[in-house]
Amino acid sequence: MSFGIDDLPVRDELRGKSPYGAPQLDVPVRLNTNENPYPLPEPLVERITERVRQAARHLNRYPDRDAVELRTRLAEYLTKTAGHPVAAENVWAANGSNEVIQQLLQTFGGPGRTAIGFEPSYSMHGLIARGTGTGWISGPRGEDFTIDLAAAEKAIAEHRPDVVFITTPNNPTGNAVPPETVLALYEAAQAAKPSMVVVDEAYIEFSHGDSLLRLLDGRPNLVVSRTMSKAFGAAGLRLGYLAAHPAVVDAVQLVRLPYHLSAITQATALAALEHTDTLLKYVERLKAERDRLVAELRALGYDVTESDANFVQFGRFEDSHAAWREILDRGVLVRDNGVPGWLRVTAGTPAENDAFLDAVRDIKKEQSA
Amino acid sequence: MSFGIDDLPVRDELRGKSPYGAPQLDVPVRLNTNENPYPLPEPLVERITERVRQAARHLNRYPDRDAVELRTRLAEYLTKTAGHPVAAENVWAANGSNEVIQQLLQTFGGPGRTAIGFEPSYSMHGLIARGTGTGWISGPRGEDFTIDLAAAEKAIAEHRPDVVFITTPNNPTGNAVPPETVLALYEAAQAAKPSMVVVDEAYIEFSHGDSLLRLLDGRPNLVVSRTMSKAFGAAGLRLGYLAAHPAVVDAVQLVRLPYHLSAITQATALAALEHTDTLLKYVERLKAERDRLVAELRALGYDVTESDANFVQFGRFEDSHAAWREILDRGVLVRDNGVPGWLRVTAGTPAENDAFLDAVRDIKKEQSA
Repeated sequence: MSFGIDDLPVRDELRGKSPYGAPQLDVPVRLNTNENPYPLPEPLVERITERVRQAARHLNRYPDRDAVELRTRLAEYLTKTAGHPVAAENVWAANGSNEVIQQLLQTFGGPGRTAIGFEPSYSMHGLIARGTGTGWISGPRGEDFTIDLAAAEKAIAEHRPDVVFITTPNNPTGNAVPPETVLALYEAAQAAKPSMVVVDEAYIEFSHGDSLLRLLDGRPNLVVSRTMSKAFGAAGLRLGYLAAHPAVVDAVQLVRLPYHLSAITQATALAALEHTDTLLKYVERLKAERDRLVAELRALGYDVTESDANFVQFGRFEDSHAAWREILDRGVLVRDNGVPGWLRVTAGTPAENDAFLDAVRDIKKEQSA
Repeated sequence: MSFGIDDLPVRDELRGKSPYGAPQLDVPVRLNTNENPYPLPEPLVERITERVRQAARHLNRYPDRDAVELRTRLAEYLTKTAGHPVAAENVWAANGSNEVIQQLLQTFGGPGRTAIGFEPSYSMHGLIARGTGTGWISGPRGEDFTIDLAAAEKAIAEHRPDVVFITTPNNPTGNAVPPETVLALYEAAQAAKPSMVVVDEAYIEFSHGDSLLRLLDGRPNLVVSRTMSKAFGAAGLRLGYLAAHPAVVDAVQLVRLPYHLSAITQATALAALEHTDTLLKYVERLKAERDRLVAELRALGYDVTESDANFVQFGRFEDSHAAWREILDRGVLVRDNGVPGWLRVTAGTPAENDAFLDAVRDIKKEQSA
């Protein structure tokens, strides 16, 4: 045996673990990581290039540690799209919403504290909790993947978590959480213990419903997290952000690594924020494609979870991993998230979605032959 | 009183704390954060622009999670400059060496574990320890800011830390740690407990001596950390990296946030690595300027710590903060790192260093008047 991880003095809870990440396979149609299938429009590519050129000329200097211009533009975007006034002092940005969540858990979770999520949900919440020494509580979700309010309130009252994650639209199931449920969970969390409630809105731009930003007023323990990876078509940029009471923004600065957000990242994000109108048009196309996937999968006889996101959860399979493999054999990569009986497919371009639908149609045909 | 951090359920140890960061003041000559004063050469700016343009065209996709091309080029740079073979599997990169250190502490430190540094040294080691729940031990340094080997070995034997930080050249004092001291501390750390030894070589390119990369062979618990912020003149890029046994690289991947390094960051760093010959010429200029600062400060009657870095520690002052203010009043910003009696000045361009020397000469003249 060669020298490996377990020969190093790693923390006990890391022994035997594997790194997080979807398989990166070379397949014609990749609908497995909820990426936006539309490349950035060429005028935006040029604008990024120009802004990066300017930033590169000062690259010997540290970036703006507080990313003030970027936070101002993000606040304007939120104000415009959510119809709720948000200021720069309400916004904080980091390298992907994962880093935003890590900073929140370092501030409000950590050793001796706990966080809860209602699973299946975005698995990084639990993994980042582990990485920050925060105890993780897997809260319940109903058979239909909605949050059963009574069961969730009971879990909060019982465990008294310091941080509550609510992902809406939820990943990997696709369904949104009703605002009244979020409000009730916020109240339950405050009643159990003054605790932070983090609403993860990574996919909100694809939703039929509205952002919960409007709930921030008068609720200083509420945080809404967002990303430019999905609606902005910028997964490669790694830009996540949050909106909250200014005191929350002050607090995460106690744990953020200084100069965490590079001058190049800030320049690229600022360029993208100049092109939101174009990017949001792609979102409309993807919503239409998402609705088509839901309708066609149902017509083929699949169970489909209601989707407010840019992906669709479908089933049920006796063996979801075998079903994943059958689709892969037809050149289409979808995601097996480990939810027994279900798979997740990202809404791609019309041609990619056609390829996916052809594949599942072909499988259905073989099964009935 | 308005609602503030302490009204939120933040972790107890964060209460009353302030965010890390040097004052960002608008002053003609800024020699306070050890930035490289030379902007990137224009051909490199153009190369960055071109590489970023290519990357931006695929920005809707997640970046290479394992940054294989970048790690390969970094390994080539280390092999070439340190004269010791380093492969991609020995290298890991992140958003600044701060994130590298954070990942190392999440892997090998964390709750119930401890780390030691020999202070005064890079204060982020202790701050990141706190942020990861790792206990921090302030190890001793001698009056002349060298590491007293017997005292350091005693501290390691007594505290049995899980992680040992050795910064060489040391920040903020500037002096290097002799290789035999590093070796002895490695042995002491292994004797006390199998523990990781992290050699922080952020300033190594400015040193009179060699990198300690050659010590990696046969020492799987040794890690060398590096940055592109200083010698590469790319503080705004936030690119740190480490070299170590491949098992260490595998281990930090258990805690790294997936896709932590953006496609844009990878593209920019790759461009800079094509221009190392030019960038290292600037390093030679800065070493000459550093040596000039040491000589002229001594000629003025200051105590100066030997420097292997791109900055110089000088003193002694009865009141170093008052001395810092006197220099600032003359338009030059240096750093008061809280080392009683001492200040730190970054080697800037010849003109910037002249401005600094004029300022301290003027102060000396006033004092003797």
